[in-house]
Amino acid sequence: MEAFTAFAHQLADQAAALTRAGFRTSIAVENKSANHFDPVTKIDREVEADVRASIAAQYPDHHIWGEEFAGVTALAAQNMTWVIDPIDGTRAFISGMPTWGTLIGLYDGDQPVLGIADQPIVGDRFWADATGAFWRHSNTTNALSTRSCASLKDAVIAATSPALFESPAQKTSWQALSDRARLVRWGGDWYNYALLAAGHIDAVIECGLGAYDILPLRPIIEAAGGIVTNWQGQAVTAGGDIVAAGDARLHAEILAQL
Amino acid sequence: MEAFTAFAHQLADQAAALTRAGFRTSIAVENKSANHFDPVTKIDREVEADVRASIAAQYPDHHIWGEEFAGVTALAAQNMTWVIDPIDGTRAFISGMPTWGTLIGLYDGDQPVLGIADQPIVGDRFWADATGAFWRHSNTTNALSTRSCASLKDAVIAATSPALFESPAQKTSWQALSDRARLVRWGGDWYNYALLAAGHIDAVIECGLGAYDILPLRPIIEAAGGIVTNWQGQAVTAGGDIVAAGDARLHAEILAQL
Repeated sequence: MEAFTAFAHQLADQAAALTRAGFRTSIAVENKSANHFDPVTKIDREVEADVRASIAAQYPDHHIWGEEFAGVTALAAQNMTWVIDPIDGTRAFISGMPTWGTLIGLYDGDQPVLGIADQPIVGDRFWADATGAFWRHSNTTNALSTRSCASLKDAVIAATSPALFESPAQKTSWQALSDRARLVRWGGDWYNYALLAAGHIDAVIECGLGAYDILPLRPIIEAAGGIVTNWQGQAVTAGGDIVAAGDARLHAEILAQL
Repeated sequence: MEAFTAFAHQLADQAAALTRAGFRTSIAVENKSANHFDPVTKIDREVEADVRASIAAQYPDHHIWGEEFAGVTALAAQNMTWVIDPIDGTRAFISGMPTWGTLIGLYDGDQPVLGIADQPIVGDRFWADATGAFWRHSNTTNALSTRSCASLKDAVIAATSPALFESPAQKTSWQALSDRARLVRWGGDWYNYALLAAGHIDAVIECGLGAYDILPLRPIIEAAGGIVTNWQGQAVTAGGDIVAAGDARLHAEILAQL
């Protein structure tokens, strides 16, 4: 295992110790948005602070782009940048549902180096680096591979919430796509992308993601054989409107509809 | 532990052995509906057949109401009836998401005797009988208790999918309720009701459930201090349109809106 990957696993282990201790306890929930309910807990902040401190100690010249604290807010040429979502799915976390995850990515300029996504209650860890894409559960590690799915009519597609599609154009696009899909799955947050990489879901279509919601997952999706872009078909180097698919033919069909 | 409860745990253990072996494998998915995609797998059928055989051997005079095989289709006075959903959340199961569960209930006439809901990948088991409501995780068992939540404006509410609200009246009712809630959660299937019993979710509002989707959960909700009725406020003795709340004040507010 490469040095950065071993270090990222150590970060995920540290995060898991904190999230496991806080999950399903009576923790205070704050609202970090003035416009709607956007929950954050002290566990989100503790995990990100802990991961940031470890990165700063180990790689003091690396940049850090996280959800909860100020830092860089873009990938930049000739910089190594860690992208962190301490708890992706805070709404699931505060509702007792074990579908949240800790996401950690590393980029060299705008190119992915590694990504890791961890759900310590279920015991699911997904990661990827230059050596491939992997999934560990119950002490067994397997390579990840997306599945073949040529067309929307055969596809299991997913999105976390109807509320992600805010504009009329987004709602119309989603409706047209979901009407043609075989099965639509709601909820899931990061898990949908990991399950796409594992060959259980065919496409994830969402809007308005943060960079930390998707950049750590991009290497896992790509190394498993999938494709992830924005709705315009461009490479994902920040957040925004996202289309991920396990099969390039399905990705092309969805992009053509958008 | 009472004899029926010990037997129900044994049934859940048997089911778990089958579901664990089948989860995230390449299993064939059939469509059991002519109108839309309603998936079923051989694992659903194997689990229900196994549970039915054990009940028939142990309690040959008991009735069985299950999702996948013919049997009784109502609770009846002076009969003991087991109500079984071998995999609640088959859509989650076939998508690799560990939020499905095996549900087993027992009714004496129309009165609940016990309910059990099991998620073996996460290691979450919820159950209730005359001695109380309980949750086991990682070999630790705790009593379940709903939380206080007096009003919709403070409530975390959940529904598995927008597609459950089929009629214009149902859509309008849901929209009015969800607009006033603090947080809306999608996905989850049976898990939402169990997390309501555990004090993490305040209300679950859904339409068109099968009896096997809700009857095994009713004893768990009620023994934890919650209330579950249909949209007309009547006791749940079959499927239909369901309102569950952890706090009777919230339940009353929701019913008043419906």
